[in-house]
Amino acid sequence: MTVHVDKPKGAPQSVTAGPIQGSRKIYASPADRPDIRVPYREIVLTDPDESPVRVYDPSGPYTEADAVIDLAKGLPLVREPWITARNYVAVEPRPVKPEDNGNVSADALVAPCPTKRMVRRAASGQLVTQYEFARAGVITEEMIYVAHRENLCREAMLAEAEAKIVDGESFGAAIPPFITPEFVRQEVARGRAIIPANINHPELEPMAIGRNFLVKINANIGNSAVVSTAADEVEKLAWAIRWGADTVMDLSTGRNIHNIRSWILRNSPVPIGTVPIYQALEKVGGDPVKLNWQVFRDTLIEQAEQGVDYFTIHAGVRLHYVPLTANRVTGIVSRGGSIMARWCLAHHRESFLYERFDEICDIMRDYDVSFSLGDGLRPGSLADANDAAQFAELETLGELTKVAWGKGCQVMIEGPGHVPLHKIKVNMDKQLRECGEAPFYTLGPLTTDIAPGYDHITSGIGAAMIGWFGTAMLCYVTPKEHLGLPNRDDVKTGVITYKIAAHAADLAKGHPAAQVRDDALSRARFDFRWEDQFNLSLDPDTARAYHDETLPKDAHKVAHFCSMCGPKFCSMKITQDLRAEVAAMSPEDHERLVGMHAMSQEFLAGGSRLYVPTSE
Amino acid sequence: MTVHVDKPKGAPQSVTAGPIQGSRKIYASPADRPDIRVPYREIVLTDPDESPVRVYDPSGPYTEADAVIDLAKGLPLVREPWITARNYVAVEPRPVKPEDNGNVSADALVAPCPTKRMVRRAASGQLVTQYEFARAGVITEEMIYVAHRENLCREAMLAEAEAKIVDGESFGAAIPPFITPEFVRQEVARGRAIIPANINHPELEPMAIGRNFLVKINANIGNSAVVSTAADEVEKLAWAIRWGADTVMDLSTGRNIHNIRSWILRNSPVPIGTVPIYQALEKVGGDPVKLNWQVFRDTLIEQAEQGVDYFTIHAGVRLHYVPLTANRVTGIVSRGGSIMARWCLAHHRESFLYERFDEICDIMRDYDVSFSLGDGLRPGSLADANDAAQFAELETLGELTKVAWGKGCQVMIEGPGHVPLHKIKVNMDKQLRECGEAPFYTLGPLTTDIAPGYDHITSGIGAAMIGWFGTAMLCYVTPKEHLGLPNRDDVKTGVITYKIAAHAADLAKGHPAAQVRDDALSRARFDFRWEDQFNLSLDPDTARAYHDETLPKDAHKVAHFCSMCGPKFCSMKITQDLRAEVAAMSPEDHERLVGMHAMSQEFLAGGSRLYVPTSE
Repeated sequence: MTVHVDKPKGAPQSVTAGPIQGSRKIYASPADRPDIRVPYREIVLTDPDESPVRVYDPSGPYTEADAVIDLAKGLPLVREPWITARNYVAVEPRPVKPEDNGNVSADALVAPCPTKRMVRRAASGQLVTQYEFARAGVITEEMIYVAHRENLCREAMLAEAEAKIVDGESFGAAIPPFITPEFVRQEVARGRAIIPANINHPELEPMAIGRNFLVKINANIGNSAVVSTAADEVEKLAWAIRWGADTVMDLSTGRNIHNIRSWILRNSPVPIGTVPIYQALEKVGGDPVKLNWQVFRDTLIEQAEQGVDYFTIHAGVRLHYVPLTANRVTGIVSRGGSIMARWCLAHHRESFLYERFDEICDIMRDYDVSFSLGDGLRPGSLADANDAAQFAELETLGELTKVAWGKGCQVMIEGPGHVPLHKIKVNMDKQLRECGEAPFYTLGPLTTDIAPGYDHITSGIGAAMIGWFGTAMLCYVTPKEHLGLPNRDDVKTGVITYKIAAHAADLAKGHPAAQVRDDALSRARFDFRWEDQFNLSLDPDTARAYHDETLPKDAHKVAHFCSMCGPKFCSMKITQDLRAEVAAMSPEDHERLVGMHAMSQEFLAGGSRLYVPTSE
Repeated sequence: MTVHVDKPKGAPQSVTAGPIQGSRKIYASPADRPDIRVPYREIVLTDPDESPVRVYDPSGPYTEADAVIDLAKGLPLVREPWITARNYVAVEPRPVKPEDNGNVSADALVAPCPTKRMVRRAASGQLVTQYEFARAGVITEEMIYVAHRENLCREAMLAEAEAKIVDGESFGAAIPPFITPEFVRQEVARGRAIIPANINHPELEPMAIGRNFLVKINANIGNSAVVSTAADEVEKLAWAIRWGADTVMDLSTGRNIHNIRSWILRNSPVPIGTVPIYQALEKVGGDPVKLNWQVFRDTLIEQAEQGVDYFTIHAGVRLHYVPLTANRVTGIVSRGGSIMARWCLAHHRESFLYERFDEICDIMRDYDVSFSLGDGLRPGSLADANDAAQFAELETLGELTKVAWGKGCQVMIEGPGHVPLHKIKVNMDKQLRECGEAPFYTLGPLTTDIAPGYDHITSGIGAAMIGWFGTAMLCYVTPKEHLGLPNRDDVKTGVITYKIAAHAADLAKGHPAAQVRDDALSRARFDFRWEDQFNLSLDPDTARAYHDETLPKDAHKVAHFCSMCGPKFCSMKITQDLRAEVAAMSPEDHERLVGMHAMSQEFLAGGSRLYVPTSE
């Protein structure tokens, strides 16, 4: 379903909406807080003996059955009553300047999203950030929301799984069987989790990033100087969250970025992250050397007022680290990192992001914009992985984490990059140690350099592993990485690949509710409930289409085989016959069969073998 | 390029041939054996300072520049002189029976490949298998070939990498800096590697499977009762090896399989594996209960005479293990496993594969058909991973490995399946222990069940990990797994995904030559040598197409940016400017900058910090 919207010039024209096939959107509330409505996606199965499966759902109102999406009006204000109750100060918004939209000519100007929101800022002497509330022992509505959301009705599902033992290796994470609001508060207070939630983003459906919660994924959108428009970007947002992106970074550069961002924020139920140095650079004509604190500071305020939930700040790229990259195979591959390195070297001065870090904290704290401390010196090739430059920066990020906490800010840390399998765990361990367990947010990592066109896979491998080791959020990589700007299909492929990586990590960590969906799908598969198998999958449309490519008839949707093996060779069918046969056995026959196994075990345990190896 | 072939009815019509774009086929010989011509693919780079990169090339004559492929004639007989010198006995081939082709009617019969090969068998008192030669201290031509092939001109490449330190974690594998024929012999003699090479497959270009060699991948082809024809299967073979499949399994069922197999073998430069029980089942009308030793034995001889290089034999599915699968979520998912379980239970007898294992060994030894001991009880869902049934079978496979070695046979062991990340290593460790380090050959494993349509990715993650831990060959999974029969695109996607997994594993194990290609590609990327980047990638066609989607002009092939970031935001471009600036610095300035880093390091090492964490 596509919802069309009447719109001012340059505004988004339509957006993908409606439920994912086979699913329906539901809302549930904690027992004592009926006013807090937490969204889930429920997959109803065809077998009446099977409970519906509820899955985590970041897609917002777009996937409601009768979604009425008016992009010009923006999404419902989920957080408005909570924010209002906190007595922030309403401020006159900073006036929009021509440079905010890249000095675009009037005829090329994209109109801003027409809906108006009150702009708020911290009141003096008042708690502002989720971190401050948590430290003060206050459980916010956002924490209650997150607790309920993370549990995924875990109680009911766990009971159903009949107290199944959940194993796993969590490498020191401490995922509780059940998540309470108090647990969320404690994790936020310890800095082990963040709830990115700008006080100017009331449309947000709160979510947590931390290694004792479900592993999250981020999708990047953004125009570039070469291609893409406002309409594309809002549609990309809706599309990315439809398939499971938990946060979205708007990496736009070029013209109209202020106004495009207004459309994105007013229509985003997920946290939006940005890299403010990109816009600052636009404002100084694209020359890194001309950057300065004033224009950067002004950009932070501009974006914080719009409601951006987290900022990537490359404050760890210090002047004296730059020479450490001189002999790298691929130098500095982070855009923000290279911009700051260029500035430092040109001025022969310490980075103003580092020197002004206190002031940056003060600004971000005033709106509860979370830090995503950027890895400007991440390796861009296996050859550069885990080198002196990368780790020097990580140590600085650890130092800055503690500064930001001291200022009341929420913090996560960005990580690599290109890293071979055997060097991944060192990254995680060092990050936890240096950064006091602040959440790690990694790009991939890519485990080989030789597969452009398939870097969603080279990086999905690394992402699953580092997620298992403790990374809290995985930044997706699309098949177009290194080659071009992703289109709609690429965004979906990237998101699904990263949902796989995140889920594989959750399973391996021993997340108590993670395997419920796998088990439900496997039962459907074994029972030849094809529709259930499709609907339980991460991408029902593709699963169904692939099946139908070779067996398109409706009758085959209930067929007890597929085209892989055909009817005679279907192991599942044979096994079902087998199971029926075992069930029909007399108790004596069954006893004898099982007894044979026991006897044989004893025989082997006693050191006897039917055959004696020739080496003996 | 597509080569068209005049052909008898039902025979393949054409096959993809010609070099991969940007590469050329070369042959090189060991210094003292100019008669042994080992194939490589050479990627010539546009930068005259860059040496060409040689990569392992299983694609056979199909990728020669002026490939003349005559499918009816078959490929050149690479091994003929070596085999001839060994004095095997020429035998009258077993006559083809109607049941070999599924009793197909005359009008539907696919003609066999018309080329004739002498059929050979062991002579009494003569060494036959590579294992026997190795144990007797004889270095075969196959071992010399394999040694040269595995080195990939490693000497030259290592020298070029300037004695770069290769790190890695190999979990007990012992990959030498340089591979000699004697090393290959030792590995084969210890059972740690196999060279699958039926004496009736003279077209074979020998290759090794073992954890001290490059990690290999297998692609499955095969018609099924529902779709696909002879032409499809031979083209799939050529297509799969073009993109890097090291062996191919023909999993055909249904009619014409004997004759289709003749086309495949006579035109395959890679080892061909089969699962003989599939054809045996066809011969008894598809009813597992009707299977018997005579028909199975006859099928082994039929296929061994045709030249099949390895057989999957599910001899580990024992009668008393069947009840262990009764409470599984997905029962028995191996086709061969379910067939044998059905037989055992119906007859209430021990498996004839287990009881007749000695005789199976004698037959396979006579042609040097390698064992691939099948994992008939592998888990088909995460819920069933590492359970009693799976591990009971693995222990039996260990017992059978030693029996097969005692009979002079080469052996590898098949492995799972569906396994979450944290349960993968246990599989590898147990396999090495139980099976005396015989090569492990795993399907995936799939690390989650919830992504049908993307199981190349769910399994590619597991494959990279288990390859790192020591698996010698990874059986590919395509996007159609669980849903339908793969088409041409699916086969390619599966192969490339598994080349990624295998290469990521090689890198992590510390294979001395693995990173050469990554480094060459990364240098090309950093230098904006787009054509070199495409040509060095696993799939140049896709890399080029993706790039051209947004920047199609030829001028952009030398552009110092891409559409991801556009010209102003390209970190690589900024870094190049930066590097030029550092290079232009006066020695004093450079000294001062580097000195600042050293000072800062001392400062930190001394316990001082610019900021003091609030917690202190």
